[in-house]
Order: sequence, then C-alpha cells, then structure tokens
Amino acid sequence: MSKLLAVGTVAFDAIETPFGKTDKILGGSGTFVGLAAAQFGVSTGVVSVVGGDFPQSYLDMMENKGINTDGIEIIKEGKTFFWSGKYHNDMNSRDTLVTELNVLEHFKPVVPEEFKNSEIVMLGNLHPLTQASVLEQMNERPKLVVLDTMNFWMDIALNDLHEVLKSIDVITINDEEARQLSGEYSLVNAAKKIHEMGPKFVVIKKGEHGALLFNEGKMFFAPALPLAEVFDPTGAGDTFAGGFCGYLAKTGDVSFENMKNAIIYGSNLASFCVEKFGTQRMEELTKEEVQNRLQAFKELTQFDIELA
Amino acid sequence: MSKLLAVGTVAFDAIETPFGKTDKILGGSGTFVGLAAAQFGVSTGVVSVVGGDFPQSYLDMMENKGINTDGIEIIKEGKTFFWSGKYHNDMNSRDTLVTELNVLEHFKPVVPEEFKNSEIVMLGNLHPLTQASVLEQMNERPKLVVLDTMNFWMDIALNDLHEVLKSIDVITINDEEARQLSGEYSLVNAAKKIHEMGPKFVVIKKGEHGALLFNEGKMFFAPALPLAEVFDPTGAGDTFAGGFCGYLAKTGDVSFENMKNAIIYGSNLASFCVEKFGTQRMEELTKEEVQNRLQAFKELTQFDIELA
Repeated sequence: MSKLLAVGTVAFDAIETPFGKTDKILGGSGTFVGLAAAQFGVSTGVVSVVGGDFPQSYLDMMENKGINTDGIEIIKEGKTFFWSGKYHNDMNSRDTLVTELNVLEHFKPVVPEEFKNSEIVMLGNLHPLTQASVLEQMNERPKLVVLDTMNFWMDIALNDLHEVLKSIDVITINDEEARQLSGEYSLVNAAKKIHEMGPKFVVIKKGEHGALLFNEGKMFFAPALPLAEVFDPTGAGDTFAGGFCGYLAKTGDVSFENMKNAIIYGSNLASFCVEKFGTQRMEELTKEEVQNRLQAFKELTQFDIELA
Repeated sequence: MSKLLAVGTVAFDAIETPFGKTDKILGGSGTFVGLAAAQFGVSTGVVSVVGGDFPQSYLDMMENKGINTDGIEIIKEGKTFFWSGKYHNDMNSRDTLVTELNVLEHFKPVVPEEFKNSEIVMLGNLHPLTQASVLEQMNERPKLVVLDTMNFWMDIALNDLHEVLKSIDVITINDEEARQLSGEYSLVNAAKKIHEMGPKFVVIKKGEHGALLFNEGKMFFAPALPLAEVFDPTGAGDTFAGGFCGYLAKTGDVSFENMKNAIIYGSNLASFCVEKFGTQRMEELTKEEVQNRLQAFKELTQFDIELA
C-alpha cells in the first residue's frame, strides 16, 4: 500500500439543481479526492487551506474517514473559499453564481513531514506554480504524479502549465480542455500532442460520456454508468480522480493495465457522488455498495466474442 | 444462419467534409446496411427503389458482395433519391444542402418471394406506414424486427410511428430522438418509456460517444473506437445497424447476451465506414481487418478486476 498526497481546495459550495438547492455545504476538490481515496483505506493526506469559519466537524468527519488533515492550514482571520453554481436542466452545463477565493488567493501549500515521501501525488486544479511548489517539497521524486487542470490556467498561465507538465506522469483533463491545450479536435491526436508535453498518461474526462486513458499508443475507455437520475454533478470529476489515485495507491501498481482498473474504480465512485448533494453520498458510501456497482460496470461493458 | 431482409434507401449522396468533397456517389441506408451485413456472409435482401439514372455497376457491386438486389425496384423514367450535405469542422453536425426525394416519394416496398420468410428484418428510416407495409408482406412474424427512425417522423407521423412500434422488437434511435420520443432527458428513463411503447430492446446511438443497449432493466454499452481522423461520417449509423443485424442473422441468436456482441460488431464496422468517403471503405473491407479491430475493441474495453 502506497501513501497518497492530495493537494486541492477544501471549500464551501452552494448548489442549485432542478431537484433543489443547498445552503453552504462542504465541497472542494481536495475533499472529494480524499473521500474517494478513503474507500481504499489508503493513508491519504490532504493539503489545503480554510478560514476560521470552517467547522471543526467537517475536519473531524474527514479524520474519521481516515483522511489526514494535518496539511489543511487554518487561517483564523480568513474566510474559506466559496463557490456557488446553478445547473441547467440537462445537468451538463452550469452557471457560476459566486466565486470568493478568500484564503485560497494566497494559498501556499505546505506538505506535512509525514507525507513528503508519498509514492502517489495528486495535484488538484490550482495555479501551475502552486502545483509545482508541492513537488519541490517532496523528499524524492514520487512514483506517480497526477495533475488536474482546467482551461482557466491555459488562459492565464500557459507557460507555467507547460513547465509543470514536464515533471508529471498523468494529466486528467476534460475533452474541451484537451482540445484547447493541444489545438487538435480528435482526442486521439490531442492525447498524442499532450504526451509530447510531458505526461506519459493522458486521462480525458467526458462527463456522462465516460473517460479515456491514453498511454503511448494504447487506449482504454470507461463509460459513465447510465443513471436514471443525476442529482448533483458537483465533485464527480474530483471523485473520479480520487478513485483513480486511491486504487493505484492501494495496489501500488502504476502500470497501464492496472490503470484500466483504476479508471473503472474512478467511474464507479463518481456514479455514487452524483446521487446526492455535495459530499453526502460519499460520506455514507459502503464497500458493499461499491462492489455491487462494480458488478454493474462489468455487465455494462464486458462481452465475449471469440476472435476468428 | 438466418436470412436478413433490409428495407431502406439506395441513393446518390454528394458530401462535403473538411477533407474534401465528392460528386454524386453511392449512398443510402439500405446500401450501408447491406454492405455491413455482407461481412457476415448472410443472405441479405435489400428492398428499395432507384431511378433510371442508377448505374448498373452499383447493383453489380452489391450482388458481388452477396447482397440480393431483386427487391430494388428500378423506375426507368424516375430519378434516384439524392441527398447532399456538408459537415462542419467538428464532424458532429452537418447541414443538408439538397434533398431530392424523386422516386422515393411514392416508394411502395415489395418484398421478394424469397425473402418473405426472413428471420430478421431491418426496417430502415422511412415513413412508419411504409415500414408497417413491409411487415404485412411477411409469411409469418419474423424472429426479430429492428426498426430505425428519426425525429422527422416523430414530427409528422407520430401516431403511425407509435402504431408500428407495437409490432417490433428493437428500435435504434439516437440520443436526442430518444429524448424527443419519450419526453425524458435521462437515457435510462427514456429507454424505459420506449420499452412501454412496444420494443423489448432499445438501442440508443450516441455517435462518437458510442451506443447503449437496453433490455428490461439490463444495459450494455459499446464505445465508438476513438479515431485519429473521421473522414466522412455518412452511413456510420446504418453500418452500425447493418453490423448489428448481420451478426444476429449469422448467429441466429437474438438473446440479450448475444446482442452485446452484435453491438460491438456494429461499432466495429462503423469505425471503418467513416475512414473514407461514402461506401468506399466498406466495399474494400476484409475479414482480417475486422478481426484485428475487434481485438482493439477488446483492449479498449475489457478489464480484469476481482470482485471482493
């Protein structure tokens, strides 16, 4: 079993969907990654920052799930990062209503001593220089570095992004962002160009249309589980990434073949995440539910044609 | 091995894509279905209509591929159905430039005696009453009736469509059309509603995002093979349907489990169809190429997680 270090936001979200709306609830990429990885019982340290308004009960919940919160800095006089959004009827698009960076604006991640030897590092969607600063704190080059990013950083910090891409192994990115970063419409060609920028592995997230894993000419595809109802998509991408990293940390095997399983676990966990508001479903999720749905993924995708 | 009857258009297409443009070339749903089914060496009869301007060489090519063209009526004084379209840069959307129905306007399909006992019937995208008239000509209820339709018929002949849906087994339809027909956004719920209209099997085609098969609470998903270049998407949906029906006809097994394989074969053949203009790639396709790509589909989708 490997140690997992996850850097990302720990935040307040206020969410509106066609099914209802919430007040400020627990959110953030670091939170969702941590909760997903917790499913595998790996030692996960989350590095983030919150304000004095952040309830101790949230930190307690994370610790109870086995997430190490020593790396979550609390700035007493500051306010926690807050995001509010409203999903459209199709649940595939949303409007951001409020983004208050607050303590995130000057976030300088500090990796706790205990996690400086983590074999797997997940660099959540933050400024590329912030992501790079985490790698610099590690005792040695981790076995696997996974980086998530978005179009915003391509728009305002492309050179910094290119620089950090040289020192990571896996990039997770959505289809539109892969097209923007590569200038290629075909995802096969986009992945090839992104490989050349550094990452040996390219994971392209297509939301309800699943996810693709590319590695040196090889491809793997995991569908999203078709659901009767998507209640709240917030955190699904981070849960996917957390499931991916958590499974790799648990197995300690970062081969392409094992990453296939990790992608399936990521999709599996993401399919639960969207069933309730915020982190609620992930907090109550049991191992048995995960195993049962894994069976559903098998039935959804596995076939048995004899090759001639 | 079962006999396959395919009713659909045999047409001229003129196609423009970012890669080039064609003059009038061979097209039509019946043509693509026939060429795909021909890969399985099943006895396939195509029922359609063409004008006096339709080259004998096209009919000869189809016969050489093992397609029975006795059911393709030739109206000497008429002109063949003509469609012209231009694809946008993303290849996912297109503008129709010309639609000349010509002989198709008064098409009354006549099933050749030899195919009145076909076990498998593919009703291509035509007026629901035209589709129903084919079923009425069969000697007995076929083992499996597959129906393709589109939003156009939902707009102008919804009652007739509902009527024919009561007497078929499998509907193939794209995601937007499934939503229109059912009034449900979630494809899981859409399939459930469409089941209630008659078809025990619902195949939802999502283009580059693959295809879903639903049957009484069970689901299967086949991805489209990610391609570096999609040259011309024309006919991909019909090739998918033809591969699906052809495989079922070859194996004679219309169970859900075997339909999984049929869906994979459909996706497999469709991935070739888009590599060249019109029917060109399907005409030259070899069994060996199909088998090699089947291996690629396995690598793309098959994983090996032990359930706890």
